[in-house]
Amino acid sequence: MQPRKVIIDCDTGVDDAQALLLALRSPLVQVLGITTTSGNVHLDKVVRNTLIVVERSGKRVPVYPGSFRALLGAGGTAEEVHGRDGLGGTGYPDPQIQAEPEHAVDFLVRTFVNSSEPVDLITLAPLTNIALAIQKDRRFEQSVRSITMMAGGIRAGNTTPAAEFNVWADPEAADLVFRSQIPVKTMVALDPNSDSGMIYEEDVEKLEAAPFPWCEMTSRLMRQSLDRWKEFTGQSRPAMPPDLTAMGVALRPDLVQSAEMLNVVVETAGVHTRGMTVCDRRTFRGIFRPVPEPNVNVVYTLDNPGYRQFVLETFLAG
Amino acid sequence: MQPRKVIIDCDTGVDDAQALLLALRSPLVQVLGITTTSGNVHLDKVVRNTLIVVERSGKRVPVYPGSFRALLGAGGTAEEVHGRDGLGGTGYPDPQIQAEPEHAVDFLVRTFVNSSEPVDLITLAPLTNIALAIQKDRRFEQSVRSITMMAGGIRAGNTTPAAEFNVWADPEAADLVFRSQIPVKTMVALDPNSDSGMIYEEDVEKLEAAPFPWCEMTSRLMRQSLDRWKEFTGQSRPAMPPDLTAMGVALRPDLVQSAEMLNVVVETAGVHTRGMTVCDRRTFRGIFRPVPEPNVNVVYTLDNPGYRQFVLETFLAG
Amino acid sequence: MQPRKVIIDCDTGVDDAQALLLALRSPLVQVLGITTTSGNVHLDKVVRNTLIVVERSGKRVPVYPGSFRALLGAGGTAEEVHGRDGLGGTGYPDPQIQAEPEHAVDFLVRTFVNSSEPVDLITLAPLTNIALAIQKDRRFEQSVRSITMMAGGIRAGNTTPAAEFNVWADPEAADLVFRSQIPVKTMVALDPNSDSGMIYEEDVEKLEAAPFPWCEMTSRLMRQSLDRWKEFTGQSRPAMPPDLTAMGVALRPDLVQSAEMLNVVVETAGVHTRGMTVCDRRTFRGIFRPVPEPNVNVVYTLDNPGYRQFVLETFLAG
Amino acid sequence: MQPRKVIIDCDTGVDDAQALLLALRSPLVQVLGITTTSGNVHLDKVVRNTLIVVERSGKRVPVYPGSFRALLGAGGTAEEVHGRDGLGGTGYPDPQIQAEPEHAVDFLVRTFVNSSEPVDLITLAPLTNIALAIQKDRRFEQSVRSITMMAGGIRAGNTTPAAEFNVWADPEAADLVFRSQIPVKTMVALDPNSDSGMIYEEDVEKLEAAPFPWCEMTSRLMRQSLDRWKEFTGQSRPAMPPDLTAMGVALRPDLVQSAEMLNVVVETAGVHTRGMTVCDRRTFRGIFRPVPEPNVNVVYTLDNPGYRQFVLETFLAG
Repeated sequence: MQPRKVIIDCDTGVDDAQALLLALRSPLVQVLGITTTSGNVHLDKVVRNTLIVVERSGKRVPVYPGSFRALLGAGGTAEEVHGRDGLGGTGYPDPQIQAEPEHAVDFLVRTFVNSSEPVDLITLAPLTNIALAIQKDRRFEQSVRSITMMAGGIRAGNTTPAAEFNVWADPEAADLVFRSQIPVKTMVALDPNSDSGMIYEEDVEKLEAAPFPWCEMTSRLMRQSLDRWKEFTGQSRPAMPPDLTAMGVALRPDLVQSAEMLNVVVETAGVHTRGMTVCDRRTFRGIFRPVPEPNVNVVYTLDNPGYRQFVLETFLAG
Repeated sequence: MQPRKVIIDCDTGVDDAQALLLALRSPLVQVLGITTTSGNVHLDKVVRNTLIVVERSGKRVPVYPGSFRALLGAGGTAEEVHGRDGLGGTGYPDPQIQAEPEHAVDFLVRTFVNSSEPVDLITLAPLTNIALAIQKDRRFEQSVRSITMMAGGIRAGNTTPAAEFNVWADPEAADLVFRSQIPVKTMVALDPNSDSGMIYEEDVEKLEAAPFPWCEMTSRLMRQSLDRWKEFTGQSRPAMPPDLTAMGVALRPDLVQSAEMLNVVVETAGVHTRGMTVCDRRTFRGIFRPVPEPNVNVVYTLDNPGYRQFVLETFLAG
Repeated sequence: MQPRKVIIDCDTGVDDAQALLLALRSPLVQVLGITTTSGNVHLDKVVRNTLIVVERSGKRVPVYPGSFRALLGAGGTAEEVHGRDGLGGTGYPDPQIQAEPEHAVDFLVRTFVNSSEPVDLITLAPLTNIALAIQKDRRFEQSVRSITMMAGGIRAGNTTPAAEFNVWADPEAADLVFRSQIPVKTMVALDPNSDSGMIYEEDVEKLEAAPFPWCEMTSRLMRQSLDRWKEFTGQSRPAMPPDLTAMGVALRPDLVQSAEMLNVVVETAGVHTRGMTVCDRRTFRGIFRPVPEPNVNVVYTLDNPGYRQFVLETFLAG
Repeated sequence: MQPRKVIIDCDTGVDDAQALLLALRSPLVQVLGITTTSGNVHLDKVVRNTLIVVERSGKRVPVYPGSFRALLGAGGTAEEVHGRDGLGGTGYPDPQIQAEPEHAVDFLVRTFVNSSEPVDLITLAPLTNIALAIQKDRRFEQSVRSITMMAGGIRAGNTTPAAEFNVWADPEAADLVFRSQIPVKTMVALDPNSDSGMIYEEDVEKLEAAPFPWCEMTSRLMRQSLDRWKEFTGQSRPAMPPDLTAMGVALRPDLVQSAEMLNVVVETAGVHTRGMTVCDRRTFRGIFRPVPEPNVNVVYTLDNPGYRQFVLETFLAG
């Protein structure tokens, strides 16, 4: 079977790194390119981190620098989570390889619009690049076969009570993407991550024991969150890297255990809810007011054992 | 034991009626007065319905007409749920008793500010009257011992995907109340209602068998929703009157099985989230940003058997 | 000729004081009562200042305490303009007379709704009390014959580039009043004040020479602004008390030289324009989009010599 | 003297056409390229119209297609003013020349960032392209020597009471440009146009008498507005093409008679004021609140005789 062609947009990031490595090592997909944007850390660090990841993956994939700030010029980083370097202070040396001269948005438009084969889009970051691609070429929306996004929260946010970081950091971009004509939209929110996207200590140990640089990097990043959590709370819990969960869904949609087509819109105007993904989950939809059309496939849970097995097998295959 | 003194604010309403009857029949509380506001139906119908309910209760309690529209002049009714008359078309004759000449807001201010004993406030409606009382006398907030509100949704709304009717119908009023200095605020949202506030067919049958007018009225209103649901979906489900659940919590706080002090704010500005009660339910509160202070006791679930028993015993005591 | 019956709502204030004295001394109107609200300074100081003014006027008019904050609980004072006491630090002793026990809003509703003769309303303050009266009794709007407001700016604001203080301090209240069914609405904005509402040095001197306490108070407040301006800029300019200009228009509408019926709406949502009175002054109205209906009589200029003569004659008549 | 290098961004449009012809015929500037955006009419018509204009100008200048909608995907045209074709139904045949394949935003970034000589930017349209250029390359803002914009209204708008079309059609883009680091920003609002940008019947007659295609086109477009106005109102008035006024200012800044550095911000959130350019024109700035910094050179009036002479001489020079 031919691998599916994909492009990944990211703001690397502790959990972006793990997700990128999974995709780069997986025979299920061919990564045509990686586009980058400001998000977890500023663009310059994101590009650097992404190049480091590509080096460790043992694969050669072009990396494109993209947006240096949000669509309306604001934005915000998450260095309190990802560390000042964006890789949790893991201290990897500067990469030897270089980013492409082409702008991420130009690469996205060029590739999707001209490709003779279907290409899927996977996003792990604020959606600025995708919004700008939609904005640049009116053919773009229809030429993306599907988009799978780590974006939003169903029960709650993380950056604010209502908003998850990727949407919070550029709500207008997210709004453009959610309202776009991209035919298939899958949203992997925070919820499946903590419900069924857990990676356990024993998984990390298996990765640590492997002789491959991508296993070293992934396990080191996972280990770090295990350790920080234990230090912080005195308790153990599994690692929960949302971008890895989303990548699992993107590569192996069959692992999804429960999901629902819902109407999802992005709040851009709220004082307390700016950046919220408003999912219509009303039990008695339709009693009160006209019901908006479902537009997004919202993932609730994964088959956790299957997911962990897939992650481990992909990384350990060598 | 002395009954607690309470005032009830309502927009009667199919489920307000049941809740009012429960309070009026319960020896646990002394209802000093019932204040009314536009909400489920317009004020004029609300006053009429409330007087009918008081007549059926076999008790004498004064009823005060209050706000005829929302704080900013908008508002909206829920006649699609409560029927044009607000009592599901049950066709009770006009009441013989009359409403008081005093405005609800004046009664609220006068009673709370001057009472030598603590008085609790129970609200089953949009919070316009309470906001106006806060607005009218600066001593009001501190003189309310506690407020228990049927208000908001935790997982979702009903009138819109994000907003529950009582908050949606007057978000600015709700915002004033949630931000007020009222020392104890308890929010009974939609969620406990459908999780553990169910009243079953067999309960309704017991009420139907009783010789009292308050049982007749309550069971008739409950029966109606059972029947409409079955007709509409071909399936049975229990009755779930949110205001009755809230009244259960207000009268018997010991029936609450799970609850949590959360920070809750009301969104007034959102395009998709206006009228939403934003509860800070983040799992990892505090990692990202300063955490807002908990200000509201949010009820999650009730002891359902205990609740049903309490409702039945109160009504059947005669 | 019978004097017209009026009620004045104010937040006394250096220029409110002058305007109140003019109305209290004028045989053209009978002031039924003065209602007060937080605004230039907090309500407590406003009530005190108003009582001082009534004492100095040589008349007996009841003063009603009203709103202690804006409709949505926010608000803001202008002590940088009116001094901490609200009377420019003029140091008048505490008043001997007392405010009424009735709330301003109750007095407004009671008087307008029950009056057998037409009553006009003159407002010199944030419109909180008027909004609450509209909110309290559905008959109120129609029972006010006319409202003349010192409110808004046409070319610009003062508190912010877009908003004048009285509207800025409670935009939601202003919005309710501008959208109300009060049949005649006249807006005296900042603009006529600086275009044609000037009171000159020589006028102040004439007031200073008069033996009456209302002349002493008025001239002292006017003198103060003349002096501060000279001190601040090294230049002389006339006094420009906006509330006095508005009172001139309210008492002597024949002094208006130019005015226009315009559509005026209040912006409550803008980041930069909250509290702005948006007047439709488009030259080519109607080319682009449906034109909103004129709803407010917007005063542009007064006959300045006539206005000054009227002020002087009223005060000096004794 | 060397002509200054400029790039013009437009949404051709009846008055854009006149302004473009003036710039193309003027020896004062060298037009490096014309970028286009949706605005007065949709992008496809704008490109067509711009090519027609370039053909009539007798010059060869590349035309770049740009944004097909506003930054947030909305937008809106002004076909009620410019006709369905955007050229007032003048019926010019399809152009023989073609637009460039490069996107307008790419051309803008490439040219400004790489130019060894200073280049000025002149905009006659919604600012979508400029915002996207700012967004695409962080060096762009600093590499634009100056921007002269037909944008906004000082006293009033045209599309709405508060908003002028170019800002109304993409407020977020305008906001990005007004807040940008572009070192010199000049705003030519609606006001100078109707105050001192008038072109009279006799001017149009002189252009009609000239044997050049650019005179034929300009006079025909001017004539059309003269005729429509007379037909519509029964009265004569001069032609007032805002984009031509702005181009006059851009080419001959010495013609400006009065202007002022003001703080100007774009309102994006208002219900009634979205798209308004809020100019801080307070008489007593600084009394109330901290005064925002001036950031825009706001043109009030031109030397009308000088302006008309400049327009005529440029067109008639042949």
